[in-house]
Amino acid sequence: MTEQVKYAIQDDYPDDFSHCYGCGRLNHEGYHFRTGWDGDYTVTIYTPKSKHTAIPGFVYGGLIASLIDCHGTGSASLALHRKNGYKPGSGQEPPRFVTASLNIDFLKPTPKGTSLKAIGTPEEVHPKKFNIHTEVYAGNTVCAKAVVTAAVMPASFTQQMNE
Amino acid sequence: MTEQVKYAIQDDYPDDFSHCYGCGRLNHEGYHFRTGWDGDYTVTIYTPKSKHTAIPGFVYGGLIASLIDCHGTGSASLALHRKNGYKPGSGQEPPRFVTASLNIDFLKPTPKGTSLKAIGTPEEVHPKKFNIHTEVYAGNTVCAKAVVTAAVMPASFTQQMNE
Repeated sequence: MTEQVKYAIQDDYPDDFSHCYGCGRLNHEGYHFRTGWDGDYTVTIYTPKSKHTAIPGFVYGGLIASLIDCHGTGSASLALHRKNGYKPGSGQEPPRFVTASLNIDFLKPTPKGTSLKAIGTPEEVHPKKFNIHTEVYAGNTVCAKAVVTAAVMPASFTQQMNE
Repeated sequence: MTEQVKYAIQDDYPDDFSHCYGCGRLNHEGYHFRTGWDGDYTVTIYTPKSKHTAIPGFVYGGLIASLIDCHGTGSASLALHRKNGYKPGSGQEPPRFVTASLNIDFLKPTPKGTSLKAIGTPEEVHPKKFNIHTEVYAGNTVCAKAVVTAAVMPASFTQQMNE
């Protein structure tokens, strides 16, 4: 049985911010990535689908990049929410982040047919910016390492969104 | 009318390597990214679908990362193929690359409803390794800048693939 994230930060995003192809619970065609705490680490678990092929038998790098991207913004949201005194599932609206940069080293080909687990360590580098140091595991093997820089979503985003 | 790539390197990949979710012509559920030359630049063009949302009105970063990933390996293949004296459409099997690393700066929110154009400059850093310096345009706006390091696919990949 695949391990699951019980309290995910994405479950608490307001509806307007829940259409993301990666982690939006209201995007019915998306991946529905969900990110939660495991002690002081953040965790996102996803089992790639048959279509997510790189070469036969291995997982597509773009899918791994997508997992890392939403894991990064979700982890930053978890970290700032915790700093503010809240946890997912508390009913308090969490802060929303955007990805400023995504830096990934693909260490090994990632086998298909197993769930992937992104494990993150959030590092505050500015009150509105976090680096999320992430490793993606397939079983016991680290297949990719990454640093995501996530910044608090600028107000201009929501203004543009509503134009 | 959306500009198109006429001679794409992916059209010449052998069938076994054409199942990629990003750029495999035989993956019927994938993006079908196609990468070709425009002079000394490499180009990949893609129009995101409605579902590829980040927040309403803007394109999902994981889709942009996927575009950059396949653009990178395709561009490296084009570059080494050219160095070997060939061009796409010549009937000669091109070399295949894997992504070693993916480094993306997201500069601006990427508007939906327009085609995206990744433009790459391949730089040979080793006989089997290229850095692909890439900019992703939405219209006249550079929305993301990236460097993809692509390495010639190791023989071990195809051995594992056939196990």
